[in-house]
Amino acid sequence: MIREAAERIRPLARRTPVMTSRSLNERAGASLFLKCENFQRGGAFKIRGAANLILSLTPDELKNGIVAFSSGNHAQAVAIAANHVGATATIVMPEDSPKSKMEGTRAMGARIITYNRLQEDREKLAAAVLAEHGGVLVPPYDHPMIMAGQGTAALELLEEVSALDALVVPVGGGGMAAGCSTIALATNPNIRVFGVEPELGNDVWQSLQKGERVTIGPPETIADGLRTPSPGKLTFPVLQRNLESILLVTEEEILAAVRFLMERVKIVVEPSGAVGVAAALFGKLPAGIGRVGVVISGGNLDLELLRSI
Amino acid sequence: MIREAAERIRPLARRTPVMTSRSLNERAGASLFLKCENFQRGGAFKIRGAANLILSLTPDELKNGIVAFSSGNHAQAVAIAANHVGATATIVMPEDSPKSKMEGTRAMGARIITYNRLQEDREKLAAAVLAEHGGVLVPPYDHPMIMAGQGTAALELLEEVSALDALVVPVGGGGMAAGCSTIALATNPNIRVFGVEPELGNDVWQSLQKGERVTIGPPETIADGLRTPSPGKLTFPVLQRNLESILLVTEEEILAAVRFLMERVKIVVEPSGAVGVAAALFGKLPAGIGRVGVVISGGNLDLELLRSI
Repeated sequence: MIREAAERIRPLARRTPVMTSRSLNERAGASLFLKCENFQRGGAFKIRGAANLILSLTPDELKNGIVAFSSGNHAQAVAIAANHVGATATIVMPEDSPKSKMEGTRAMGARIITYNRLQEDREKLAAAVLAEHGGVLVPPYDHPMIMAGQGTAALELLEEVSALDALVVPVGGGGMAAGCSTIALATNPNIRVFGVEPELGNDVWQSLQKGERVTIGPPETIADGLRTPSPGKLTFPVLQRNLESILLVTEEEILAAVRFLMERVKIVVEPSGAVGVAAALFGKLPAGIGRVGVVISGGNLDLELLRSI
Repeated sequence: MIREAAERIRPLARRTPVMTSRSLNERAGASLFLKCENFQRGGAFKIRGAANLILSLTPDELKNGIVAFSSGNHAQAVAIAANHVGATATIVMPEDSPKSKMEGTRAMGARIITYNRLQEDREKLAAAVLAEHGGVLVPPYDHPMIMAGQGTAALELLEEVSALDALVVPVGGGGMAAGCSTIALATNPNIRVFGVEPELGNDVWQSLQKGERVTIGPPETIADGLRTPSPGKLTFPVLQRNLESILLVTEEEILAAVRFLMERVKIVVEPSGAVGVAAALFGKLPAGIGRVGVVISGGNLDLELLRSI
């Protein structure tokens, strides 16, 4: 499915570059290969999954439009893919989503419905929209076509960089981690795959400890793309099977990684996208790992947030 | 010489990526191919020229060390190349150079001598150092080996991107513009080559109007790499022969380009490095140009400056 997705999404997703940085490697004590999804269309990897699902729909399925709920990057991706196939898009977004993400979504012609992340349930809101207008729900992670689409990021990385010891992937709902870990292990059964979460949003870490899906209170991490309170029904068993462990990083470590990437590597990465680099910079990886693929999941950073960083 | 330089500098300079951006192209109304020297070793193109000259020196020539004067990026480049060949480096830098550039230079083991840019003459200071300690002067632009080394940026760009209508290059002392325009016209006699200067530092623009080298007062532009008060003796005749014209950009246009590159293209570019994109974004290029190579000369931006931007 991931290899098929790579063909399907070609008209919409770009093959992003893999970057290396001498100063980053020196500081991390390992060779890092950054899969730069911050340069992806829409500024994040999310177009891969959204395009994979939306481009597989029939004209009849598309006629009542697309509905999605998202903290931001998935919203923009769905708006881009819906626009491409000529379908209307309605996106349910938290009212405190980064401004840049809301503007990017609106700019692609999508209708936005906002909600209070701490008080309302976005899935119920999306269900209400679907009940009223019909349409196809494009979930942010818990769907086989979404997981397969996100996996194409690792597929490209593994085609370009050989002999990786490990792959490090940010974990929100687990869609990218599920897809990327699946293709990585299919390509190289010896590769070690690690997820990364903020300590303040460690639902997958807790779930793996407990052996079942745990739901935590709304995470207040600065990594807004990783604020999902629990792993997905479909993603969790894949993560259980594929991940060696979840690495946890603090808010300070995430911000230091964003700054390092900006000052030394010269790339703009949002906090959620920098957690893998944070893990590598702050010694969270086990010893003895020489060559590490790190997925930089996105770069949509409000300039106001940037100033405060 | 430029083709020879490309071979010589390989151990020190990296082949930087060429980036494209849909949002940038839409805004500029042309297809831009960004040669990203902000990802170069030392954060700027300067390593190309410095490595070309320093790697051509004999052990005997190197024994008394290397001396250079620079506002910053050339300083770091000379420090890196001198360190590589085991020579000492003494760098004369303006006391108001960006902190990041001074720190980068010191980190490579170079000795720094600071001076007041508005009151002192850096060439005299460098001459005094040479008179006292001996050593080889590595000038920032006015030397055939430096010009040839900088030209390798355009050589790589032209190898990677075909059928360019134009090439746009920032102009400080003119070393990169001389080298890049020479190889561009040698490769494709029909390519149109444009230099870009800040309006506040338009010494080459004035010099081309007058047909001779003009010296202006110390330019107060935010583009600290383009504050040279006059074109070089050796670079000027090359610029006269090769450039169609100099495009001028305002301080506001430069800052808007830095912001656009950060927000939309997700790359960190210093003001001097963004002047080519500023020219493209603000309609300074003649009509009818479809495919444009733009040299992004560097990315060494103080975080304090970034905050103020």
